[in-house]
Amino acid sequence: MEQYVVPVEWQEGYVKVLDQTELPERETWLEIRTAEQMWDAIRRLCVRGAPAIGIGAAYGVCAEMRRHEDESASEYHRILNDTIDYLATSRPTAVNLFWALDRMRKAGEACGNLENTETRVKLEEEANAIEKGEEAACIAIGENMLHLLKDGMTILTHCNAGGLATVRYGTALAPILLGKERGINFKVYADETRPLLQGARLTAWELQRAAVDVTVITDNMAGMLMAQGKIDAVIVGCDRVAANGDAANKVGTYSAAVLAHYHGIPFYVAGPVSTIDMKTPTGADIPIEQRDPEEVTCGFGRRTVPEGVKVYNPAFDVTPHELITAIVTERGVVMHPDREKISALMGE
Amino acid sequence: MEQYVVPVEWQEGYVKVLDQTELPERETWLEIRTAEQMWDAIRRLCVRGAPAIGIGAAYGVCAEMRRHEDESASEYHRILNDTIDYLATSRPTAVNLFWALDRMRKAGEACGNLENTETRVKLEEEANAIEKGEEAACIAIGENMLHLLKDGMTILTHCNAGGLATVRYGTALAPILLGKERGINFKVYADETRPLLQGARLTAWELQRAAVDVTVITDNMAGMLMAQGKIDAVIVGCDRVAANGDAANKVGTYSAAVLAHYHGIPFYVAGPVSTIDMKTPTGADIPIEQRDPEEVTCGFGRRTVPEGVKVYNPAFDVTPHELITAIVTERGVVMHPDREKISALMGE
Repeated sequence: MEQYVVPVEWQEGYVKVLDQTELPERETWLEIRTAEQMWDAIRRLCVRGAPAIGIGAAYGVCAEMRRHEDESASEYHRILNDTIDYLATSRPTAVNLFWALDRMRKAGEACGNLENTETRVKLEEEANAIEKGEEAACIAIGENMLHLLKDGMTILTHCNAGGLATVRYGTALAPILLGKERGINFKVYADETRPLLQGARLTAWELQRAAVDVTVITDNMAGMLMAQGKIDAVIVGCDRVAANGDAANKVGTYSAAVLAHYHGIPFYVAGPVSTIDMKTPTGADIPIEQRDPEEVTCGFGRRTVPEGVKVYNPAFDVTPHELITAIVTERGVVMHPDREKISALMGE
Repeated sequence: MEQYVVPVEWQEGYVKVLDQTELPERETWLEIRTAEQMWDAIRRLCVRGAPAIGIGAAYGVCAEMRRHEDESASEYHRILNDTIDYLATSRPTAVNLFWALDRMRKAGEACGNLENTETRVKLEEEANAIEKGEEAACIAIGENMLHLLKDGMTILTHCNAGGLATVRYGTALAPILLGKERGINFKVYADETRPLLQGARLTAWELQRAAVDVTVITDNMAGMLMAQGKIDAVIVGCDRVAANGDAANKVGTYSAAVLAHYHGIPFYVAGPVSTIDMKTPTGADIPIEQRDPEEVTCGFGRRTVPEGVKVYNPAFDVTPHELITAIVTERGVVMHPDREKISALMGE
């Protein structure tokens, strides 16, 4: 067993996807051969986490296009564009999805009048480059984040921004996994992260595999731990960072940021630059996905909210940049992020 | 169907208890005839909520003592004391349990050399007086709290401090239910309240019965709603208030208080004076019950934390008095509570 997780893998014709909805009970791998199957896998959160969604969508394009090589080149390109448009509708918040699909579109366009089989090679190379780029970004994020931390610290994390959300090292978990390899040990509290329990199901599973000291808490216990002086830093991932440094991430991140602020605990957001969207001016402009109330009302196999009672179920919330101590990317650390500093980081 | 809930009822020889662990799926009523059955019902949270635990324990004494009337008076009193000591071990945090059992002990002692059948009557009268007192306190709390609120406000509540936790009107829910009767309408957001989902299962169930506009959220969404300006006040119950005004309540209450403070939203704690414990100097002196990790790992039929991963599961946390806008009791409202004001309220 490899120590780190590769939740999305290209397999010469199909995409091998770890069905994260089944964790930690079962390790089920899906064979995805069509865009429709990938759309469904993304929507159902079989593959989830902003970078992993981007990688999955790119490979989803590759899988779908394998089925259309006998078409004329123009028909092939029409299908390619439709496939990209279609996959972009799978989820609205994480910008990596649009970023990766945009790269796939441009790679296709650059092929001009090549044979379909040659275009196929270029598309698959591009998807592979997206994956490799995100993997390298994770390691660099881990390196950069380690400079902000000290051996023995206790870290609170929310949701899952590990290998399951990216590839191998993850973003928020990268310093923890990278540190572990080097004998730098952290203790981790994982918010279980209602409603879908990505912290309890996924972060705990990953960190346990990597022999990291991890304790699961319900989301509402984080404040109490902070008040007890048990948390030295909060590290979370992100689904979209706006041009001013506001960051959308799994719902509950904002509450964790306010609690960290109140207790004087640093609050770090980890993400590759593919998650920064200069076309989104502020957090208020980030579309927030509303998901099925059933995730809240009967998430665990048993109905826990009376029939007919209203439920609010946004998948994400936005943490304003004022509450973020630093955004940590593969290009470097942006302390106390704002529009100017993000702009400088992005070279704009 | 009566509109309001009476979760614990004396039935001439046994205690009728609504098994709250089965809500909202099933309305199951238990017939409790021994102290052991009541101990188990309290420990398993079939009956829960500080005032309801006190009422349940008092009636549990009555049920048990019905079985010992043929004993000598001295043996009867020995059993009475043992029964009271035993029931006091069912849960550690809510002080109403000890307060109610103390009243039962004193009522027994006051009987001196009465016949057992006469002592029985006194004990049952005392238990009934405890119930009636708490019911009246709830209505007075509702009245007092209504002065702090305005028609049309949106209220966030955590856990369940309704009729299910007391009798009929509840404490935190009293102004909402009382308001409803008078045409004063509130909109309520109910934190689902992990791990045992008392907000989702119980508060939503109660408020739906009373035709109150209620929406369930996961605990981690409260901050986001506050940031959106959607919450006008937070009202919670309490399990023990220390002499300096620090209040223990369901875990997550502290986080809600910090969030309310950050957003400038009033944070009200509702409870009868039986919940105020002058013998507990500060919140740090309140014993916090640690409960079974399984409540977090497989609470609702499906395992959600990998085997072998550590879990922290305190049932309560403490909100320091500095974060409490007012403690609302049947004797009046204590704005910005501190030791002096609590002392004045308690007449000490």
